[in-house]
Amino acid sequence: MDPAAKKKALRLLSYGLCVATSRDDTGLAAGTINWISQSSFTPPLVMVAIKADSGLHRAVAASRIFAVHIVGKSQKELATAFFRGAQSAAADDTLNGYAVETGQTGVPLLLAPPAWFECRVVNEVRGGDHTIFVGEVVDAGVRSEEEALTLRDTGFAYGG
Amino acid sequence: MDPAAKKKALRLLSYGLCVATSRDDTGLAAGTINWISQSSFTPPLVMVAIKADSGLHRAVAASRIFAVHIVGKSQKELATAFFRGAQSAAADDTLNGYAVETGQTGVPLLLAPPAWFECRVVNEVRGGDHTIFVGEVVDAGVRSEEEALTLRDTGFAYGG
Repeated sequence: MDPAAKKKALRLLSYGLCVATSRDDTGLAAGTINWISQSSFTPPLVMVAIKADSGLHRAVAASRIFAVHIVGKSQKELATAFFRGAQSAAADDTLNGYAVETGQTGVPLLLAPPAWFECRVVNEVRGGDHTIFVGEVVDAGVRSEEEALTLRDTGFAYGG
Repeated sequence: MDPAAKKKALRLLSYGLCVATSRDDTGLAAGTINWISQSSFTPPLVMVAIKADSGLHRAVAASRIFAVHIVGKSQKELATAFFRGAQSAAADDTLNGYAVETGQTGVPLLLAPPAWFECRVVNEVRGGDHTIFVGEVVDAGVRSEEEALTLRDTGFAYGG
């Protein structure tokens, strides 16, 4: 396999940007992700690949709950704020400086993004440098009419 | 959970359009998909959710091999041609009227799309109306410099 062709072909997959959040006994966890897709209508499932050595991974693996927030077209700085996870997990009412409330599963829900959904993990696949968590969507909300930011919009790449 | 909010939030996930192909003892199989994402860099893995009652699903589940083709910005008609799977699986040199060659795993590779990759299934998760197949990328190619078509570009929706 030609590594350059593999990288180029995989980078032609299209992605949006999301911020995922979770919590475990040690506090809140978060991270910007783009490897996510719905995987079933009934029941409503999503599949998300989370970096195995991240704080977000540790929290989701322990608590089996997470939320996903759609990053809005105007919210590139929100996405970049969570590139390195949750830096300020002490106060429960903000996460990296962004206001949160608590969802029905107990995960923090950011108030700024246009939409979010909360999931309970029903399956997982380990084996690569990311773990695939399959989550059933148990709650969701829409806060504004803003369109979604895409990875292409930002000029960033994560894949290949 | 408010079903309208769930639908709206899930439809804000961003997708590209791809045509997936496979083959089994009964012949070639294909279908347009958008529920796909990379899921690991090392090894290079992708996760793809394929409708459980489709011919494509039957072929991938049996043969454990598939290819994914990135649909180019100008190729909306290629995507729509595969909405209902492979209708003309008889001749091995065309698929729904589009020229193909045979990849290293034995799956048909479409010549028109700007890029493709071939996968061997290493894991699967059943449970919803789609099955998640986790595939290791074993070969890839780039045929042109065209950008990827997104679901948003087409005005179609598949999710929610």
